[in-house]
Amino acid sequence: MVDRGNVMFMGTVESTGETSTLRIFTEFCPALLGIERYSHLIVLYWFHLRDNPEHRKTLQVTPPRHEGAPLTGVFACRSPSRPNPIGVTVVKLERIDGCKLMVSGLDALEGSPIVDLKPYNPDSDSVPEAEVPGYMRHL
Amino acid sequence: MVDRGNVMFMGTVESTGETSTLRIFTEFCPALLGIERYSHLIVLYWFHLRDNPEHRKTLQVTPPRHEGAPLTGVFACRSPSRPNPIGVTVVKLERIDGCKLMVSGLDALEGSPIVDLKPYNPDSDSVPEAEVPGYMRHL
Repeated sequence: MVDRGNVMFMGTVESTGETSTLRIFTEFCPALLGIERYSHLIVLYWFHLRDNPEHRKTLQVTPPRHEGAPLTGVFACRSPSRPNPIGVTVVKLERIDGCKLMVSGLDALEGSPIVDLKPYNPDSDSVPEAEVPGYMRHL
Repeated sequence: MVDRGNVMFMGTVESTGETSTLRIFTEFCPALLGIERYSHLIVLYWFHLRDNPEHRKTLQVTPPRHEGAPLTGVFACRSPSRPNPIGVTVVKLERIDGCKLMVSGLDALEGSPIVDLKPYNPDSDSVPEAEVPGYMRHL
C-alpha cells in the first residue's frame, strides 16, 4: 500500500507582519486566476523549521500559551511539531499584485513554503458555534 | 533550495455516508489524545485518485456544478485536480471508538488517505461574513 505522497512547494511567505506577502512561483501563477473574487483564503504552508525526524515523530505536546492545557495529541492541537508539518490558516485577502498576494491574519513564519491556497467558503468552512475546551478561550 | 516535501499517510477514510469513519493507523493513534474536547475538526486528506502527473499539472478548471462559473485557477476553487492533491474539509466529530472517528460533513471519497487532523477553533477558523462569488451561492 502506498503510505506516503510528495508535495511541491508553490511559493513562499516572503514577509510577515500585520500584512504578509505570499509570493507564488511564476510557474504556478496561473492557478491564481479569479482568486480576487474571494475575501478570504485558506493557506496551507509547510512548517519548514520542524521538517525533521525529531519534530515529525512528535505525537503529543502540552500546548504552550494556553494556561491549564493538558498533554494533548497533535491531532487535537495546532502544534507545528507533527508528523506532517503542514499548517492551515484562514487569511483575509487584502490585495493582489501579479503573483504576490497581500494577506492579513497569517500565522506563519517568514520563509515558510506555501503548499496550497483554497478559497474560503463560509457555507462549508465557517462553524461559529464549534466548541473548544475552556483553556483555548483565554488566548 | 528545497522545493518539495513528503507527507506520510496517517490513516484512511474507511467508509463514507451521512456519517463517515476515519481510521487512524495504530502508530499515530496517540496523536488523538484529547480530540473529544472539540466538536469540529479540520480534516486534510489526499485526493489519491488525482495523484498523477496529468491532474497535478492542472492549474485552471471550469468548476462543475456551479452554473455560470468561469475558467478559474485551482487556487481559487476547491478542485481535486491541483498540484498538491490535498483536500481540506471541516467535519463534526460525532463519536470516537479507539482509533476510529465517526464524523459528519466529510467531503472525501472512501479510501482517501488522511494527511492530518486539526481541531477547529472558531476564533481563527470561522469567518461567517467571508465573501464568495455569486455562482458559489446556488449549490
